[in-house]
Amino acid sequence: MAMDRTGQIAVIFVSQRTVGDADGYARAAEAMDALAARQPGFCGTDSARGADGFGITVSWWADEASALAWRAHPEHAAIREWGRAEWYSRYEVAVAKVGRSYEWEQR
Amino acid sequence: MAMDRTGQIAVIFVSQRTVGDADGYARAAEAMDALAARQPGFCGTDSARGADGFGITVSWWADEASALAWRAHPEHAAIREWGRAEWYSRYEVAVAKVGRSYEWEQR
Repeated sequence: MAMDRTGQIAVIFVSQRTVGDADGYARAAEAMDALAARQPGFCGTDSARGADGFGITVSWWADEASALAWRAHPEHAAIREWGRAEWYSRYEVAVAKVGRSYEWEQR
Repeated sequence: MAMDRTGQIAVIFVSQRTVGDADGYARAAEAMDALAARQPGFCGTDSARGADGFGITVSWWADEASALAWRAHPEHAAIREWGRAEWYSRYEVAVAKVGRSYEWEQR
């Protein structure tokens, strides 16, 4: 995350991975990260997944329009269908506007 | 996450764990989860951390007031100081209001 995300749109993606197709999933995730990073309004992404397959990815967008455009991107939409069929047993998405943010780092 | 989080406040906590004190951290995290769950306005929490120590926790609150009250809770504030000293090398927090949410589950 960057210094101040106030006003950005956070797309919070909470998902449970299936056990299968680790290689295909890793390749697709990498490709989607690279594609997202080239979209207008992209402000970054943070992602974590535990050994149990439960994961959270937050993508950060400059505004609603860029978040919606990424959702509608044809390659993203196609991979989402694949994700439903192969990689996830469930997922949940929340789209939220950042009212304040702060950070701390060990000095 | 529940069915619909529209209108809720998402507190997105992105953190890098240090390598030390795994037991102390696990105990504190469990205690904080239990304490948070007893607060007014608590709507749930989702958490994932990878083997590299990078993690994301989202806590969900009914409104701004309940999110702020949790931030100010004395036990939470105390453990935050401990976290800075012992458990995290850096963290970032964004507080965001959910405009829409959806979910999908494999049938």
